[in-house]
Amino acid sequence: MPMARFWSSMAKRAEPYIPGEQLNKENILKLNTNENPYPPSPKVIEAITKEVGKELRLYPSPTMENLRHEIASYYHLKMENVFIGNGSDEVLAFSYMAFFEPGNEILFPNITYSFYPVYAKLFNITYKEVALNEDFTFNTEAFFQSEGGVIFPNPNAPTSIYLPLEQVEEIVKNNPNTVVIVDEAYIDFAQASAVELIDKYDNLLVIQTMSKSRSLAGLRVGFALGNEKLIKALVRMKDSFNSYPIDRLAMIGATAAIRDKEYFEETTAKIIKTRTWVTEELIELGFDVFPSATNFVFATHPKTLAKKLYETLREQDILIRYFGKKPIDNFVRITVGTDVEMKRFIQTVKKIV
Amino acid sequence: MPMARFWSSMAKRAEPYIPGEQLNKENILKLNTNENPYPPSPKVIEAITKEVGKELRLYPSPTMENLRHEIASYYHLKMENVFIGNGSDEVLAFSYMAFFEPGNEILFPNITYSFYPVYAKLFNITYKEVALNEDFTFNTEAFFQSEGGVIFPNPNAPTSIYLPLEQVEEIVKNNPNTVVIVDEAYIDFAQASAVELIDKYDNLLVIQTMSKSRSLAGLRVGFALGNEKLIKALVRMKDSFNSYPIDRLAMIGATAAIRDKEYFEETTAKIIKTRTWVTEELIELGFDVFPSATNFVFATHPKTLAKKLYETLREQDILIRYFGKKPIDNFVRITVGTDVEMKRFIQTVKKIV
Repeated sequence: MPMARFWSSMAKRAEPYIPGEQLNKENILKLNTNENPYPPSPKVIEAITKEVGKELRLYPSPTMENLRHEIASYYHLKMENVFIGNGSDEVLAFSYMAFFEPGNEILFPNITYSFYPVYAKLFNITYKEVALNEDFTFNTEAFFQSEGGVIFPNPNAPTSIYLPLEQVEEIVKNNPNTVVIVDEAYIDFAQASAVELIDKYDNLLVIQTMSKSRSLAGLRVGFALGNEKLIKALVRMKDSFNSYPIDRLAMIGATAAIRDKEYFEETTAKIIKTRTWVTEELIELGFDVFPSATNFVFATHPKTLAKKLYETLREQDILIRYFGKKPIDNFVRITVGTDVEMKRFIQTVKKIV
Repeated sequence: MPMARFWSSMAKRAEPYIPGEQLNKENILKLNTNENPYPPSPKVIEAITKEVGKELRLYPSPTMENLRHEIASYYHLKMENVFIGNGSDEVLAFSYMAFFEPGNEILFPNITYSFYPVYAKLFNITYKEVALNEDFTFNTEAFFQSEGGVIFPNPNAPTSIYLPLEQVEEIVKNNPNTVVIVDEAYIDFAQASAVELIDKYDNLLVIQTMSKSRSLAGLRVGFALGNEKLIKALVRMKDSFNSYPIDRLAMIGATAAIRDKEYFEETTAKIIKTRTWVTEELIELGFDVFPSATNFVFATHPKTLAKKLYETLREQDILIRYFGKKPIDNFVRITVGTDVEMKRFIQTVKKIV
């Protein structure tokens, strides 16, 4: 706990998240932050280019109705079921504020998105990390009857493993008095989304992002889908914090991205295909690779230490993610790039292991 | 206090801010949210247009060094003295989190930016509203020796009145144990900024925005300037909340805007000139108008009720801001537009009063 004059207790107790490096070196192969290797849809570029102009002097819409409407149509929901934030990270932060209570313990997996404990510390929310099974799958029942709520990614990160929808539903159903947040950042690379359960459970909040499958990490747009009353609570948080978190260009770009379903499906399919190929190659090189339902693979090698692999690749201008903490200190997370990029990656790994 | 199932105590106690309307009607004259009537610098448009492309698939820089460097140079500070957020509203929210403590009463003026009590309610910060003098100037001494900190806009909003720098310094000097936040959203239309006091006082935080004088309300960029230790606390809040609140396009656009000093000075001078003219015209029509140091004027008419004026103008597609609460329930706030716009405004007002 760093101590500095003038800092509030919140500032002191915070333990900030450390995002993956954003190196701007030429020829670097960035496989460390799960960005999409394909550019955004040409229709996104076109829409933004048209919007860049004098209207930037005006505030964006605080209610974001056009974009909310577009997302609602995509999922056959009502606009009242959609909340939009500055990336899914901001949506997660508002969700902690709106649904979790200091003193009521929340649950999340012990291997998961490392931002979850960060929010908990910031907002003084007690949490328990639920151990995963040895094969990194969920022990579903351990998430039942939480005191303060549940949050988990599906597919989980960084394990890349998808939890079948029936098990997600079991968790939601067995927490009737608290909110269950399903963080679906990578769902478009997996199977069914929990969105279809929203009408059935008023305690389910599904969070998604446009940073991964829609190639828009640079624009900062995430959203939550859920019962109208949950969405209202999120809006209260946003409107008590910052009226306009999404700028005019991001709003227009995100709307165009949702509309271009064809491009989205095409690029997502390509990534899934490359993922299959990369997984096979890594297994051939002796890696243990989890069955990925995301745009990254999570792997370990019986002979080459993860740290060594990470460092050696880095020297050769290939960035992957290494977490360096138990129980995943001998694993690496590798973003799935294009075929060309992944060939370079596999060639380089071959020389290391 | 609305009650809904699943809402946290924070969600229940929140009393959200209500921003000015963003009507998208043709031919509407928007003088209600203090936007700049002039478009952003052509260099901003050019820079953003160049950036719109495949790189949008990548996350922005979480440390925002280029933009921080640009702002630091502009003010002859170090990069370590600069924090950037999603509009000054987000910077204000992080400042409440970083420097104000539940239980320690903070002070702000009783006529001021109406977001201040909203943040206080959200984060459970006790506050006291310090009465202004009858002429709406500050009773400086009433802000001395605060228990938990002080926040005020300079120039104040919506009164438009500037507090001379010596008095700002008195407030900062007489709060040696707490942080004093000077919210300078409108400072570029006024006299000296408190930025020059930063080296002298480690408890001073100055907050500014690119939404007003830089014509970039649509891009969402605000910043704080202060002692390195205060900035560190803000970074801890951001990095515990959302790693990348500023998207790639906003970052590039804001950097170009700071660089184009000439355009900034030219448009700011034009607004100040129009402000003088509008003030004179309003006085001639019988209004009491405060001496404005902002891009808006705050006025009252002895015979025409503010509410009536607001509503009648609205029917004629001219939006101004009416707050409808004591002690400013007979005042209106009018954004200064272009000469052409303000001629239309004055012509219409003439027919009403």
